Parts: sequence; C-alpha cells; structure tokens
Amino acid sequence: MMSMGSEQPSSKPIVIDGPTRIYGIIGDPIAQVKSPRLYSDIFAANGRNAVLIPIHIRSDQFEEAMPGVLAIANLDGLLVTIPFKMRVIPLLNRLLPMAAKVGAVNALRREADGTWSGDMFDGIGLVRGLRKQGITLQGTSVTLVGAGGAGSAVGMAIADAGATRLRVLDIEQTKAVTLVEKVARHYPGCRVDAGPPDWAEQQILVNATPVGMRPGDDAPIQLDRLKPNTLVVDIIVKPDMTPLIARAKQIGCRTLDGRVMLEGQVEEVLAFFGMESAQ
Amino acid sequence: MMSMGSEQPSSKPIVIDGPTRIYGIIGDPIAQVKSPRLYSDIFAANGRNAVLIPIHIRSDQFEEAMPGVLAIANLDGLLVTIPFKMRVIPLLNRLLPMAAKVGAVNALRREADGTWSGDMFDGIGLVRGLRKQGITLQGTSVTLVGAGGAGSAVGMAIADAGATRLRVLDIEQTKAVTLVEKVARHYPGCRVDAGPPDWAEQQILVNATPVGMRPGDDAPIQLDRLKPNTLVVDIIVKPDMTPLIARAKQIGCRTLDGRVMLEGQVEEVLAFFGMESAQ
Repeated sequence: MMSMGSEQPSSKPIVIDGPTRIYGIIGDPIAQVKSPRLYSDIFAANGRNAVLIPIHIRSDQFEEAMPGVLAIANLDGLLVTIPFKMRVIPLLNRLLPMAAKVGAVNALRREADGTWSGDMFDGIGLVRGLRKQGITLQGTSVTLVGAGGAGSAVGMAIADAGATRLRVLDIEQTKAVTLVEKVARHYPGCRVDAGPPDWAEQQILVNATPVGMRPGDDAPIQLDRLKPNTLVVDIIVKPDMTPLIARAKQIGCRTLDGRVMLEGQVEEVLAFFGMESAQ
Repeated sequence: MMSMGSEQPSSKPIVIDGPTRIYGIIGDPIAQVKSPRLYSDIFAANGRNAVLIPIHIRSDQFEEAMPGVLAIANLDGLLVTIPFKMRVIPLLNRLLPMAAKVGAVNALRREADGTWSGDMFDGIGLVRGLRKQGITLQGTSVTLVGAGGAGSAVGMAIADAGATRLRVLDIEQTKAVTLVEKVARHYPGCRVDAGPPDWAEQQILVNATPVGMRPGDDAPIQLDRLKPNTLVVDIIVKPDMTPLIARAKQIGCRTLDGRVMLEGQVEEVLAFFGMESAQ
C-alpha cells in the first residue's frame, strides 16, 4: 500500500526530470484545487517519478482542448473537477461500473492499449471520509443540494451506504429528478424525492454545488430554518470557510469541509492509477 | 536577476498546488531532456510557483495535439526540442526576430492577449556556453553537422559570433543549402558552403543532429580523419557520452556536450518567459 500524505508527511523532495510521468487535474477554475499538492507529495514520498499538476481548461474551450491534452503521451491519468465531470464522458473509450451508474467521472486513466477509461470516486470518497470522522450513514435522513457530476456520485453513495431518506435539490429541476430516479432504481430501500429540505427531519445536509467557491457567493440555499443538530458537509475544498459552513457554525451545527471527500478517495484513486503499491 | 541552478543549488523544495503555473518542454522522444529539472529547480530557488514538465507529443500526433496543449490556460510557456523546432511555427501568432531569421523556434510564450510568440535561443545558447568555457568563435573555421531547427540557429549564431569559415553538412542536402544561403545573406564576412568537413582546416566540429541519442547510434559522420586539435561539440544532452564524443576523446580532442548549449541560454529563456527578476 502506498503511504498517504496525510498519515506520513513527505520526506522526499519532488524532482521533475525527463522521465517524470504526468498526472493532472482539469477544471475551470483551477486555483482552488488541493489534489496537486496531496498527490504530488504522495508520489514523491513513495519514490514515484510522477507529479500531479493543475490543468486549467476554460469551459468554452473544453471540447477543443481535451483531445490534445489526452494525446500527451506521458500523461497517465487525470482527475476531473467542476464543471467537467459529465462533459468528459464522450471523450472516453470506457466507463467503469460506478461511473456508468452515476453518469459522471472524476478520474481518467490511460490503459495499456492507449484508450482512456473513466471512473467516479467522489461518492465513495465522501462516505469513507465521513466514516473516518466516525459518521455512518446507515438509517439516516440526508438532504443533498446539487445533482451535477459530484452530486450524483454523492447521492448514489449515500443511498448505497444505507441512508433511508434522501431529498435532492438542484437549481435545475431536471437534474434533481434524474438523480432521484437513478437512486430509486438502484436503491429501493432509500426513500428518495426532489424538493426543499425537510428541516425538522434531516440529519445531514450536503452541499455538492460550486456555490460558495467564489468571493461574494452566498450559501447555496436559505438556512434560516437549519437546526443545530444537523451535520453540515460542504464538498468545496477552497475556501475552507464557505458561507454555508460559516452560517452552520453560527447556528451551532457540526461541519465538515471538502477535505473529507478528497482525502476519503485517495486510496481508491491511487489504485485506479495503478499505484497501489509503493516503489 | 534570477539566480541560476548551476551557480546556486536550489534550497527550496518544489511545491505543486492549485495556483502553480505550468511550463513544459515538448519533444519526441522526451525522457532525455534536462530542462525540466534545470528550470523547475531555478523557479523553486527563486520562490516562483511554477514548474517545467516534460510533455511527450508523438511526432505523428503533433498537429492534432498541439492546439489542445496551447489551450491549457495555466500553461505560460513551452520549450521545444527535436523534432518540432520548425513544425511548431505554423501554430504561432508571432515570431520574434531571431526565430524569423533562423526559421525555427525553441521557446514559446503566451502573451497577455492570449496569442503565442516564438523565439530561438539555441544559437545564442551555444555561443554563450562556449564563451563560458573560454572559447570565442571570432576568426574560426567551423564545421556544422545538421541544418535542422537547432542546426540553423547554431549556424547563424556561429557566423554572428565572427566565425570566418562555416561548412554545413546535412543528410538532406536541401536543408544544408538553405542554411548556407541564409548565412551568406546575413553574414557576408563568413565564407560558408555545403560539403564534407575540411579535416585539416576546421577548428571546431559541431553536431546539431539527433544522431547519437539512441542506443545503437553511431557518430553522425565518419571520424577517421578527425584531428586531435579539433574542438568537438555535441548538442545532444543525453547520453553525455555520445558515440561522437567518445570517438573524439579517443582521438585526443577536447569535447563539450549538450549542457553547454542548454546552460548558455538559461538567462535569455527566463527573460523571454518574463522571469528575469526574482520575486
């Protein structure tokens, strides 16, 4: 097993030379991402000659840029963040089962034959991250705000982990409905629908929208009726203190930020990249 | 002035995070390049949040891949190596004067308006690198093997530095003739022609072909008549000991490898990238 940066700080410096293998994270914007530091340090700590770099693709240039990026021969894998988790699918040769189920991917890898496969680890990342914080989802009532790429993965994983009630909101109602139907089909034990939060019943409120990333953003929903016994989880990694988290803390809620989802999926992503063992 | 890795070893580790700016070197093959380590260490030593990574573009995918690579919004500049120094020109919006004169580029940068400019530093790199070794070209007789992208830059720079005799060979005779005409037009004080080395007269023999990079390669030309008082320069950076260098050493010649050209252009390339001053 590759040792993780969070458990064992990197003692070896990053070296970049001709044989260095390249991994990247694509998104728009990109400066907020935390994966480059996390993964590059893990690669170095494990003696791998590889780095993971931020790759900023502007949303309006995505379809034009991506074939060229995927043609870089020493690029072995990519992470995918907002707003490309669904848009990247047509570029792939193969979806692994979780990505196919969710309809979104957050990690790509080049196979030995040169084709590209995609998989989705955000859902399992959040569930494992919560478990590391002592939180199990079995029997819980959860509200999910955001049914895009990450939101779909999170919704499916929450149901998979045994939540018995899931309510989904999205500013695009069709996205919410699509996810609700998908969860209902795969997880009949979870009562799922679209609509506003049930403030009294919900135990966990998860934000899977990008609202809160930009300066001047408000919380993704009105929080006047948020109860202090609700756990509030934001998948945004930067800023740490989103308007949602700040307001929830004021109200007295326990809160968790985007590092939970990020760090909860590191092992799975490394295995997907073929880096499960050190050296 | 930015401090150079070769003069002042990097004390600061490389950190890669979301805001890191990306530079690259494109070539095929790529594992032999030394620029990623040289420049990434200089950036880190000077507190710049930037790295220079190897970007392997297969020659048969160059035209397909490059528009996408140039669309990466946090990619600020590229170095260019074999075999793309001439082929990259149609992708550029602007050639700076030396690149236009030579007809090849080895460095690109993104301008503030998003367009791409190219310049050529191989020639000045070799001349400055030789000067650092105490070698001036004024009044010398030089043989140049290879009239491709780097060879053209080197030939022009050798004439510009005052060599009075230049003989050019290339396996493609039209390339040699094209360079000869270009040198003759710009530097009437240099007697230039195409043909085999004049073994008795030449003082310096420069290899600017890739022959010697691959295992099993021979020297780029027959060396039976090479005289021990000839200075032999190979622009290949890896292996250090090319067949040409090895044979020249056997004969008793002074030799210099590709680090001379590489290190001789660092200051100019940094200035071109807008990094002339530290922090």
